[in-house]
Amino acid sequence: MSIIMEPGASDYQIRNVVKKMKTYGVDVLKVKGKYQTFLGAIGDESRLDFDALSAMDGVERTNPVQIDVKYPLVNRRFKNDDTIVEIGDGKTNKVYIGGEKPVYIAGPCSVESLEQMREVAGYVANLAAKDNYGQYMLRGGVWKPRTNPHTFQGLGEEGLNILARIRDEFGLPVVTEGMREEHMQKIADSADAIQIGARHMQAYDLLKAAGKTGKPVIFKKGTDHSVEEFLQASEYILVGGNGKGQSGIVFCPRGSHTKDVKYIRNRPDTEALLVLSAETYFPAIFDPSHSIGRREYVGNVSAAAMAMGAHGLLIEVHPDPQKAMTDAMQQVTPGEFKQIVNACNGIHKMRREYDILR
Amino acid sequence: MSIIMEPGASDYQIRNVVKKMKTYGVDVLKVKGKYQTFLGAIGDESRLDFDALSAMDGVERTNPVQIDVKYPLVNRRFKNDDTIVEIGDGKTNKVYIGGEKPVYIAGPCSVESLEQMREVAGYVANLAAKDNYGQYMLRGGVWKPRTNPHTFQGLGEEGLNILARIRDEFGLPVVTEGMREEHMQKIADSADAIQIGARHMQAYDLLKAAGKTGKPVIFKKGTDHSVEEFLQASEYILVGGNGKGQSGIVFCPRGSHTKDVKYIRNRPDTEALLVLSAETYFPAIFDPSHSIGRREYVGNVSAAAMAMGAHGLLIEVHPDPQKAMTDAMQQVTPGEFKQIVNACNGIHKMRREYDILR
Amino acid sequence: MSIIMEPGASDYQIRNVVKKMKTYGVDVLKVKGKYQTFLGAIGDESRLDFDALSAMDGVERTNPVQIDVKYPLVNRRFKNDDTIVEIGDGKTNKVYIGGEKPVYIAGPCSVESLEQMREVAGYVANLAAKDNYGQYMLRGGVWKPRTNPHTFQGLGEEGLNILARIRDEFGLPVVTEGMREEHMQKIADSADAIQIGARHMQAYDLLKAAGKTGKPVIFKKGTDHSVEEFLQASEYILVGGNGKGQSGIVFCPRGSHTKDVKYIRNRPDTEALLVLSAETYFPAIFDPSHSIGRREYVGNVSAAAMAMGAHGLLIEVHPDPQKAMTDAMQQVTPGEFKQIVNACNGIHKMRREYDILR
Amino acid sequence: MSIIMEPGASDYQIRNVVKKMKTYGVDVLKVKGKYQTFLGAIGDESRLDFDALSAMDGVERTNPVQIDVKYPLVNRRFKNDDTIVEIGDGKTNKVYIGGEKPVYIAGPCSVESLEQMREVAGYVANLAAKDNYGQYMLRGGVWKPRTNPHTFQGLGEEGLNILARIRDEFGLPVVTEGMREEHMQKIADSADAIQIGARHMQAYDLLKAAGKTGKPVIFKKGTDHSVEEFLQASEYILVGGNGKGQSGIVFCPRGSHTKDVKYIRNRPDTEALLVLSAETYFPAIFDPSHSIGRREYVGNVSAAAMAMGAHGLLIEVHPDPQKAMTDAMQQVTPGEFKQIVNACNGIHKMRREYDILR
Repeated sequence: MSIIMEPGASDYQIRNVVKKMKTYGVDVLKVKGKYQTFLGAIGDESRLDFDALSAMDGVERTNPVQIDVKYPLVNRRFKNDDTIVEIGDGKTNKVYIGGEKPVYIAGPCSVESLEQMREVAGYVANLAAKDNYGQYMLRGGVWKPRTNPHTFQGLGEEGLNILARIRDEFGLPVVTEGMREEHMQKIADSADAIQIGARHMQAYDLLKAAGKTGKPVIFKKGTDHSVEEFLQASEYILVGGNGKGQSGIVFCPRGSHTKDVKYIRNRPDTEALLVLSAETYFPAIFDPSHSIGRREYVGNVSAAAMAMGAHGLLIEVHPDPQKAMTDAMQQVTPGEFKQIVNACNGIHKMRREYDILR
Repeated sequence: MSIIMEPGASDYQIRNVVKKMKTYGVDVLKVKGKYQTFLGAIGDESRLDFDALSAMDGVERTNPVQIDVKYPLVNRRFKNDDTIVEIGDGKTNKVYIGGEKPVYIAGPCSVESLEQMREVAGYVANLAAKDNYGQYMLRGGVWKPRTNPHTFQGLGEEGLNILARIRDEFGLPVVTEGMREEHMQKIADSADAIQIGARHMQAYDLLKAAGKTGKPVIFKKGTDHSVEEFLQASEYILVGGNGKGQSGIVFCPRGSHTKDVKYIRNRPDTEALLVLSAETYFPAIFDPSHSIGRREYVGNVSAAAMAMGAHGLLIEVHPDPQKAMTDAMQQVTPGEFKQIVNACNGIHKMRREYDILR
Repeated sequence: MSIIMEPGASDYQIRNVVKKMKTYGVDVLKVKGKYQTFLGAIGDESRLDFDALSAMDGVERTNPVQIDVKYPLVNRRFKNDDTIVEIGDGKTNKVYIGGEKPVYIAGPCSVESLEQMREVAGYVANLAAKDNYGQYMLRGGVWKPRTNPHTFQGLGEEGLNILARIRDEFGLPVVTEGMREEHMQKIADSADAIQIGARHMQAYDLLKAAGKTGKPVIFKKGTDHSVEEFLQASEYILVGGNGKGQSGIVFCPRGSHTKDVKYIRNRPDTEALLVLSAETYFPAIFDPSHSIGRREYVGNVSAAAMAMGAHGLLIEVHPDPQKAMTDAMQQVTPGEFKQIVNACNGIHKMRREYDILR
Repeated sequence: MSIIMEPGASDYQIRNVVKKMKTYGVDVLKVKGKYQTFLGAIGDESRLDFDALSAMDGVERTNPVQIDVKYPLVNRRFKNDDTIVEIGDGKTNKVYIGGEKPVYIAGPCSVESLEQMREVAGYVANLAAKDNYGQYMLRGGVWKPRTNPHTFQGLGEEGLNILARIRDEFGLPVVTEGMREEHMQKIADSADAIQIGARHMQAYDLLKAAGKTGKPVIFKKGTDHSVEEFLQASEYILVGGNGKGQSGIVFCPRGSHTKDVKYIRNRPDTEALLVLSAETYFPAIFDPSHSIGRREYVGNVSAAAMAMGAHGLLIEVHPDPQKAMTDAMQQVTPGEFKQIVNACNGIHKMRREYDILR
């Protein structure tokens, strides 16, 4: 059950309605927008007296069946400005996702060894030093959700340590994926952001655990879920306590099922970027690597994502893709990555130039 | 990497190959089928010397890239007989899923109160007493993975206690869904089977935790995943230690996305039953309630699932569906449930009569 | 633009509104339902004065943007009773689709020779003679829309002649598919019904040409279209003049794309039967052969379609499936067909017995 | 059945194999590639003696079951160079699709009046005069395949005459869609290219009729078909005689079904451009207007299509979109079109600069 307050409702009126709702034994979610305030009942909605609430001063309308704004916490309608998610701290440079400049999060699918990470990080740091437009951070999987349980599952905490060491050496923020509730705090302690993978998009308790750490969450879209389901699931990250301090959600579509599996692994769902931008105030990046799954097309897909409004790219880069322990088919070389960055910086600048490329 | 041994390979030859594989630092998964034995390397496959292994006595072929039998543990090709999953113990009657008779798992979407559960259980127990063909058990959600975080999330452990009490009173086995690793043992202690929901189909650590309890797992298919992905994910339940004693997997498709959301909530993916039956030796049941999402069609979908080879149905029954706290649209009344059971028993008997309805 | 008249609107009021609409230069589609009358503007809607029309006596509401009842001609809301489509004439037995008894339309994918058709027809006629419940007719393709242009394309008119001869010999009604406008009258002259294939579901001029003949049309659903699109397209058959005399539409879903192409060719879209039954007064049958594409599953799918409310089945039967020139994978033998008929008759009787199997 | 000749097979050997095949009563499709020649049997393949053919000099392998190259005529493997499709004649400027420069095909969804077309054409001609990079032609629908038969169906031949007149006045090539076999020659006589719409992608006789005219065919992808089905269907255009002289196919994806219909009408299937480029030597353009269905996103989608390798865009431009008789939601203004062209020219130039944007 939810209540939309009238545009001119006073704080006093809002407080009264909240107080009244609580007398029925529910918690109240309050979201203040530029014009209107939204109040959602959390708990046993059946106990609420809708007529009494509808009649209160300042109430525009109530919705008895369900919360009609399906994702009030992340909904653009109830917040004035876009959120720029800040990642990194004093020990690293800082990146700002959702602002004036694009972000490139690069690294191998799996952290395989200190040497491998050092090689990639060196390349990325070098690029970062010369690029006065793009921003950079590192990625690498340490716990791997593999479709097949009989294959390499990641280095685990050993990999997390490698990542932390690389972070210190190169001063670039790092992100890695957590698969279990207990991973979340560990990642929060060692890295700059937590990634939730596509397979866990609706593992709500995992989302809550990630949110509770207060770290920014890079949240990947499930393979065949709608954007609406994606937005709804994201509420669990904020319910967990995120959204305060240096935190927030970075949405990240990563491809959907295709009928043409003979030719490509997934089909890039870049249209999600358009919808996300219209519906939420949090920024969105795109994963060109998983969303097409073929190295030779990662450049085109990166550029297309930029054209569709991505605030950054999460891209698999490996010093020697053919020897990669996982996702060998879709990782690009550092040299290819540099070309992608150049092209994408160019398209991102076009977005600032042309109104039609909002 | 995997090895398929020749049909006539001796135990001695198999042992030798396993020993050789382990010298490279990997674990070996061995699956003995009626005719051939499958050996899969678990760990860092890159260390294996494929030429040396291919040349060994008794080896038919090796596959260097990946395990070519994508789901060796649940694969029908590597096991002689169908597994009949036994649920229940001395304190309840026992049901056998995958055998000669169908199983009906009935109950409300959510456990709401002791009274509500008692009413449903009384009805089901009464039906069970009179039906000498169908088998019965109870279901009810206590932790609810709701799409919207701002709605009722289940009674939690209080609900689990209600379920346990109903189990003792009526002597019917019970199942409920677990959403967190810590839920699994709790359910194993109080109930007769663990349900893994569609949203967690690829939450692999959750699957492992469920498997470790040794309890039967009712494993629901993700909304838009392929049957192949479903089978692959199920391996994680067995990797966790399941498959021994009174345990095993009961597959349960529950509907996929439809283009006709205007008319129905999901489209029943009953074709998954045909594929599961061809590919795995574990039994499969069907969830007509979620798979169509509209009460008036649950009867037809139940009958269709029976016609497609289901070994049972997981069906939402509520004493007063319109007052249900969750899924009010799709729960049937006890009276409707009785009709469904009668029709489905009839169709199940036909399957034993006609060869074309395997 | 459309107008819904009030429930008690008089004929005089309706006539006045129609007259007014025509003064704006549009044609008017009038559909009289049990309670309300629907008036749709055909032509340049922009010329209409909505305010003036809304203000007229007897008008309940107008919809300026588009016709809000998307398929007024086939819509159940505007017709009192279900239509039973009658197929066949004095020279054959007659079948009634949508009535008390199911219809089985059997025959090979392609008409290959007189001998082949005679063999199948003899078998079907024999079954028909002994079955006092099911009704029977014959099918066989003469113009074949093959995905690959470099394969067998059907016998053409020679095939049509074979079909006509078989019809005379055995007294069973026949149906075949037309692919070009010029085929429609030819089929109408030689056969008892016209089939429109899935590939032509939205080839609107073809639908109009089929409708114009006044023959019943068996209308197949496109592989990945929604039921809503299917219903909308069907309007073109009636616009073409059908729906009078011995005519009408028989809807026929035939399977949709599946993610599990490794195991099955299509996935049976039997849920379309539920929606069709709720939305249109015309009957629907099902094609189990194309919708699964694998002979070993055709029995299960036939039974499931019956459970979902099909009024009949369109099923590929070949005397020797492995030698079939087309669709060898999915045709059943006459012996298998007999079993399917027995099982489906049984399920159809259940539908008359149980309320929940409407 | 098909035969692949050895790389070094002589003309004499090839001729001998063809001759032999014909003795079995089939036609032979011969496709000569740079390295190898493909011979496909057209007709009753069952009569062929595979063993005899396999044993002939110069034969590399035969495939008895079906033609294993599913689309031999349009397949890149059997042709040396990309085809550049030339559109227009002495009375218009000429555009070259698939060459060094992009093509913009602009115009309203429907031809509504001479004035309307003149206004758009004037704008496009003006843009063309100033742009030394992009090429331009005009589009406008005269026969409209409307989902709803009770809405405006296009001006028909009157519209075709308007289009022809505009062509003469402005010297820009024009294209329009044909829906019936009889339309094809009419369009060929008045316009510069024939468009086949998404609904008719598998209306094979229509494709043959279009191909027979010898005019270039802009061939749109069906809403939910795979690229493989799209390529297979395209063979019918060439079977009809196209591919000689000033003719050829221009592939044009136009969007697929989306789960997010609440926010967008279709989802842009730009990934088809990557696959088409890899599989066929004919060029591909993209339709941003239908593929997203929302005016505010047409700019982003155009740019993304360019990034994915489109050789041009087919884009709906209307002088006053809100008053458009059809597709009012998705047409852009001339001013917006100009911005799109500028951005897309920029991205097209990037493709020539960066290797990763092939």
